[in-house]
Amino acid sequence: MKKKDMNKQTIIQDAVAEIILAEGAVSVSTTKVAKLAHIAQSNVYLYFKDKQALLDSVYQRERNRIINTTDIAELRNHDIDIETRIRYYIEQVYDYSLANPDSMNLIQQIKFLMGEDDGLVINDSPNNIVHELLQEAIDNQVIKKLPINLHMGMVFSTIHQHTNNIGDQQYPESEYKFEDIYQFIWDAMRIH
Amino acid sequence: MKKKDMNKQTIIQDAVAEIILAEGAVSVSTTKVAKLAHIAQSNVYLYFKDKQALLDSVYQRERNRIINTTDIAELRNHDIDIETRIRYYIEQVYDYSLANPDSMNLIQQIKFLMGEDDGLVINDSPNNIVHELLQEAIDNQVIKKLPINLHMGMVFSTIHQHTNNIGDQQYPESEYKFEDIYQFIWDAMRIH
Repeated sequence: MKKKDMNKQTIIQDAVAEIILAEGAVSVSTTKVAKLAHIAQSNVYLYFKDKQALLDSVYQRERNRIINTTDIAELRNHDIDIETRIRYYIEQVYDYSLANPDSMNLIQQIKFLMGEDDGLVINDSPNNIVHELLQEAIDNQVIKKLPINLHMGMVFSTIHQHTNNIGDQQYPESEYKFEDIYQFIWDAMRIH
Repeated sequence: MKKKDMNKQTIIQDAVAEIILAEGAVSVSTTKVAKLAHIAQSNVYLYFKDKQALLDSVYQRERNRIINTTDIAELRNHDIDIETRIRYYIEQVYDYSLANPDSMNLIQQIKFLMGEDDGLVINDSPNNIVHELLQEAIDNQVIKKLPINLHMGMVFSTIHQHTNNIGDQQYPESEYKFEDIYQFIWDAMRIH
């Protein structure tokens, strides 16, 4: 049996990411991946049992990037008041999205293909911490009593649209400050 | 030359819509459409020159449904104050989305495939009227000075997520009133 090579696994994931960004998640096939990664198709199956596993792994890799570049633990720190923690969460999504627009596109593409409410999304740990944070804010009447995926979806889609606008050169990054985007999001969420 | 048959055109559009809802817009091919519509593939080309034309036509059909079921002209009626007109716009998207969740999914799928900022979206007339309305509201300092696609995207994605939640039976329609959803959206948009 062939020995697994972590470097090859990365090459395969990179190929999957490249196809998603160019053609969308639906276009991913092991044939295409093998061709782009310059390896035999049978070799792809050594690392990933099917297309679903490939997409899961690329999704998880992007989620891990978010965890590693952001300070998720702070969101649970009860010494910090809840409004500040929510602001911090929004700021982290904002910074990550500006620095990694492709990563946000990958996540959105894979989520879109899998369905927003797929177990894939709900069971990963950063989402659980954010979910907990927002539930706490609802219970303490800091934010509106609405489905948590409306709150989280608003944060994600507003910031993602904004960074896509910058990427499409609709306006320069300097045109709007974080504060402008934050105010839009926070005004929706909070109880007035 | 074969004579065009409007009934057949509708059958083809229905087949396209069925494929999009089941498998996503990327999966549409003239081969699949011909099979589902029980007509020869050459016949599909009699009505639509390519896949792009097929998707455009289904997108346009859904947009026309929105126009026909909503009172777009009222949005331009300057006898009505601007806040009321924006509320009316949000209410129309809400009512349409609850009554036609599949239609919203079709529009989202096709938009997603084409890219949000495609000419397809920007050049259609209901969007132009909404664009005009929101620009007027920005100029009059009624809503925040932010890209109009952030305002419109928020309205669309919040309502769409909410109707999808209902469709997925996460909660019954009665759990949240229009007023709850409206307040979330309007608080984000307006200047406080």
